[in-house]
Amino acid sequence: MSDPLRLGIAGLGTVGIGTVKIVQKHAALIAGRAGREVVITAVCARDRAKNRDADLSAYAWEDDPVALARRADVDVFVELMGGHDGPARDATLAALAAGKDVVTANKALLAHSGQEIAELAERAGRVVRFEAAVAGGIPVIKTLTEGLAGNGIRRVMGVMNGTCNYILTRMDSAGLPYETVFEEARALGYLEADPTLDVGGIDAGHKLALLASIAFGTKVSFDAIELEGIERISIDDIRRAGDMGFKIKLLGVAQMTGRGLEQRMSPCLVPADSPLGQLQGGTNMVVLEGDSVGQIVLRGPGAGEGPTASAVMADVIDIARGCRMPTFGQPATTLSDPVAAKAAAAAPYYLRMELLDKPGALAKVAAVLGEAGISISRMRQYGHESTVAPVLIVTHRTTRDAIDAAIEGFAATAVLTGPPVAIRIEQV
Amino acid sequence: MSDPLRLGIAGLGTVGIGTVKIVQKHAALIAGRAGREVVITAVCARDRAKNRDADLSAYAWEDDPVALARRADVDVFVELMGGHDGPARDATLAALAAGKDVVTANKALLAHSGQEIAELAERAGRVVRFEAAVAGGIPVIKTLTEGLAGNGIRRVMGVMNGTCNYILTRMDSAGLPYETVFEEARALGYLEADPTLDVGGIDAGHKLALLASIAFGTKVSFDAIELEGIERISIDDIRRAGDMGFKIKLLGVAQMTGRGLEQRMSPCLVPADSPLGQLQGGTNMVVLEGDSVGQIVLRGPGAGEGPTASAVMADVIDIARGCRMPTFGQPATTLSDPVAAKAAAAAPYYLRMELLDKPGALAKVAAVLGEAGISISRMRQYGHESTVAPVLIVTHRTTRDAIDAAIEGFAATAVLTGPPVAIRIEQV
Repeated sequence: MSDPLRLGIAGLGTVGIGTVKIVQKHAALIAGRAGREVVITAVCARDRAKNRDADLSAYAWEDDPVALARRADVDVFVELMGGHDGPARDATLAALAAGKDVVTANKALLAHSGQEIAELAERAGRVVRFEAAVAGGIPVIKTLTEGLAGNGIRRVMGVMNGTCNYILTRMDSAGLPYETVFEEARALGYLEADPTLDVGGIDAGHKLALLASIAFGTKVSFDAIELEGIERISIDDIRRAGDMGFKIKLLGVAQMTGRGLEQRMSPCLVPADSPLGQLQGGTNMVVLEGDSVGQIVLRGPGAGEGPTASAVMADVIDIARGCRMPTFGQPATTLSDPVAAKAAAAAPYYLRMELLDKPGALAKVAAVLGEAGISISRMRQYGHESTVAPVLIVTHRTTRDAIDAAIEGFAATAVLTGPPVAIRIEQV
Repeated sequence: MSDPLRLGIAGLGTVGIGTVKIVQKHAALIAGRAGREVVITAVCARDRAKNRDADLSAYAWEDDPVALARRADVDVFVELMGGHDGPARDATLAALAAGKDVVTANKALLAHSGQEIAELAERAGRVVRFEAAVAGGIPVIKTLTEGLAGNGIRRVMGVMNGTCNYILTRMDSAGLPYETVFEEARALGYLEADPTLDVGGIDAGHKLALLASIAFGTKVSFDAIELEGIERISIDDIRRAGDMGFKIKLLGVAQMTGRGLEQRMSPCLVPADSPLGQLQGGTNMVVLEGDSVGQIVLRGPGAGEGPTASAVMADVIDIARGCRMPTFGQPATTLSDPVAAKAAAAAPYYLRMELLDKPGALAKVAAVLGEAGISISRMRQYGHESTVAPVLIVTHRTTRDAIDAAIEGFAATAVLTGPPVAIRIEQV
């Protein structure tokens, strides 16, 4: 058996302690599977005195993650601190420069500096693995990079922020408004300190950017993502979409179009009876579509101590077994600069509007859609006792540009109470 | 870039031709991802003259797969012939003895000779990969062996025979009896030449045996699987189970119990609103449960040219990248001899019986269940116009032994028209 693989773990929060526990609990199992022992030699966190749910007495302590990253008795630097700059970034770069492999759960760091880190790793002959950064316990990085390596990837989709899916499904099942459920989620500790990271789609956007890079052989380009959060989703939209057979999800979609790489993280309608539509609560789901394999759906816990630590350990065991590959599945220097194509892919749209109760109002709406080249698949006008009538329209496939033109046209008709809600229907 | 990896492909049926097409179509993509070219040097099939949907003119032809396996210009022997003995077995052993790596889609061969082949591979310093052997395009072998390598595995479940799932869901949706849908499936070409391989659960059992070995570190033990096919599932059972909120699936389950390794491939009831319950048609689903990760669900196409060839290519690209590991995830010599535990895990059961319309009949049934230590969760007696009354019972968790004792007890009461149907309810 080879020498033990020695880990230095920076960050002893939930995931860090979860990783320590697996290494301790499954030492024999892991050695049997990896062909060598996996041991922890040193750890690092902000507060040494904090009471933690694991015995760390056998490990050297470092106050400085950069010092940990450079220790001679560390083979793999395990970065579980988080943050797209500052100590996490410094220590990751220091580890690679010092000839260490890196395992990280840090989606923000890789979404912002993935190309720089991948190039540095390759120059140093080291690997950077990040299974834990995307969709928690679901081995989606491995599935995409390795399991589907023989496929041209057509589309990658995912519900990858459990908090948003919790909020949306709770609004749906309890009939509660966004604000109420948001406060519930905050009280339950489901939200990041800065909740915009969750409900604004930023956290999920980081994950999508990493998947897109692997899928399409492009440099990570987080800034090119069309980002829209769930803050404006109303209980009305959830109910009305339900009437038409849809669920609303914060869905990430990346696909290569004729105009370039389209990356969106935004609320979408999906069929209620599809795997994505049936996804409840904090569970994550990723859908991968390849030209040979067709559609693969992966479902599992997207966060939490055990699931995320499981993903960290998968990367560690790969390194222990000697499985080494470029960060994003091909040499970083061969990744292309993607052309960002905003709203390029055509799709059906869901439109919800309130019509003033005037003769010919619906005819004017229909005329505007016709002028924009949008044809109607289904329309429903609800009974009403006030002077406004709720109207739902599901269009046939069209472009975002056409929808925007129609919204402008609606304004000129003066028969709507305000701009309509327009949500893309993703075909899954 | 390293030397090209040279494949010799034995078997040019659907999967073989699918593999040839991917190598040809995606030569550049694969070279970029694998870090070296992947090329085909030689092929082999029974009938050279057969018209095939691919240009094979650049490859050497062998009539004998053993000769192909030994060719000096072949690095990886790709076995896509099938069959648990005969040429597939001979050629696989010959390839390993000649120092070739092996990629195979042959579940039957590995279910019967997996231990021998794994030991031979390790003595020869070669690898045997078999992603395509289980659940078609779903990268389940990789997910279990690598993605969840840090977990103690608790349970593995799967719907892994698309034909059986097609038959059961078609019976359900069209309200047709088994015999009619079986003939439909045969006419559509969904059935193996020997349909018992499908509907008897043998094909799916082969797959379960391979997953169980990886999950629990045990030698493949196909003979220890409790095997029951779908031939006796009636449209009545499907309807009645539906009334109680369940679907019937041919479900493989492997779990380590206090009494040993339990492996079952049999019809089970699962909640209609669970991912397994919602699975329609020929799609496959595998559920993996680990002590850290919790539950991971994988869904995708279980057969067909593209999906199965995608899995073959994932293994090939792993080998090209230099990722090498023992066949069943740990050295074959360290796999344990499992103690086979039949029907060890407790579960609720579904019982369907027909009661003679006699006073006290239901009381006698209840008394028999009580004596067997079985408590009733839900009971439903249907209205009837004849002299027999259909009765459904869902029990609380109990053992198969207790159910068998109750079935014996029922016979003595003489209030049933015959033995009840008893189907395990798998908690998912």
